[in-house]
Amino acid sequence: MTASRLEKALAYTFSDSSLLQTALTHRSHSSPHNERLEFIGDSILNCVIALELFRRFPSLAEGEMSRLRANLVRQETLHQIAETLAIGTELRLGEGEMKSGGNQRPSILADAVEALIGAVHQDSSFDHASRLVVGLYKERLDAVVPGQQIKDPKTRLQEYLQGRRMPLPKYSLMQTSGEAHAQNFCVACEIPSLRINTQGIGQSRRAAEQMAAEKALETLK
Amino acid sequence: MTASRLEKALAYTFSDSSLLQTALTHRSHSSPHNERLEFIGDSILNCVIALELFRRFPSLAEGEMSRLRANLVRQETLHQIAETLAIGTELRLGEGEMKSGGNQRPSILADAVEALIGAVHQDSSFDHASRLVVGLYKERLDAVVPGQQIKDPKTRLQEYLQGRRMPLPKYSLMQTSGEAHAQNFCVACEIPSLRINTQGIGQSRRAAEQMAAEKALETLK
Repeated sequence: MTASRLEKALAYTFSDSSLLQTALTHRSHSSPHNERLEFIGDSILNCVIALELFRRFPSLAEGEMSRLRANLVRQETLHQIAETLAIGTELRLGEGEMKSGGNQRPSILADAVEALIGAVHQDSSFDHASRLVVGLYKERLDAVVPGQQIKDPKTRLQEYLQGRRMPLPKYSLMQTSGEAHAQNFCVACEIPSLRINTQGIGQSRRAAEQMAAEKALETLK
Repeated sequence: MTASRLEKALAYTFSDSSLLQTALTHRSHSSPHNERLEFIGDSILNCVIALELFRRFPSLAEGEMSRLRANLVRQETLHQIAETLAIGTELRLGEGEMKSGGNQRPSILADAVEALIGAVHQDSSFDHASRLVVGLYKERLDAVVPGQQIKDPKTRLQEYLQGRRMPLPKYSLMQTSGEAHAQNFCVACEIPSLRINTQGIGQSRRAAEQMAAEKALETLK
């Protein structure tokens, strides 16, 4: 486990590195595993995003804040954050889980992000955990335009390209894996003339396309 | 509005009393009303109870913590807390809402408790809001026996009386009010030989009985 790389990505150094290890340990591997930390991490995440929306948008109604938050804390978003942090390579999974591609499963990766938030809280304070959340979500929070639907990455990519008279991307399904009840889709997003070729995975084809588009946007910007 | 009485009950004095006023203002009365504060208060409540369960019960599994929390943060519990704080007398409601008994409606009272938590956060810090939540929930948190269903007030009252060979309570429906879709039940809990006669209200007969039992327990202890 290269803790230092992940700590750098999180902009947080653990005093108690066993908390970091627990956050990265799936229940299929050993105990203590990350489910308890995930429970508090999820609560902290929901709370911090609520407070941040409240602070940023003083005239937004409760219902709108609630809708925006649901969008920000859902598994798809957490999965994208996990990919940015490259958490998959650091996860400790049981043998069976590892063989079946558990370290790429969106739900496992999303849970690990929440567990990391919980671990930072236990290692220091609510304020530190809050700073971590705001840091991880900075670009997404900055992109929120109140009163307007948050545009999904595919839409943002298309608008970005159209605004610059650039060619549009082509999405293609590369692979599906896993059993029927827990399938993963791998989709490529290609813009040959811009030498863009990114991939995304997700539990639906749509989710995989969105992740690929998100990565293409990051490459472009 | 006797702010000082409520502030005393909350064990918190506001620097900005307009936040207290907003927390007590229902949307039927005027703007700013308490819905935004309720949104963050609800998030803070969920988060603080999660952290408190995590801290108090180091070996409790995620699922059990989640179940315990759901029990603690539901409307029925918040309504009981609102009754203890006598929030109903301080609520600012529109005329129509007031006439139809809005200041006794469980949902309105529960929302106001959450708004007060949010208001304390905005007036000071997460730590202060956290202290408020832990204070309001102290007895309920102390009563949590992990691995065991939290006993409802009726059960606790019955066991308390049986353990002391005291006569059992009698519950009777005193009144129903409101229209079919938003009925309120008022139930009395009587133990004549102990001179106990408490009342509870709720959106179901069961909820009203539980509140009456809770009050009887408080009188007895």
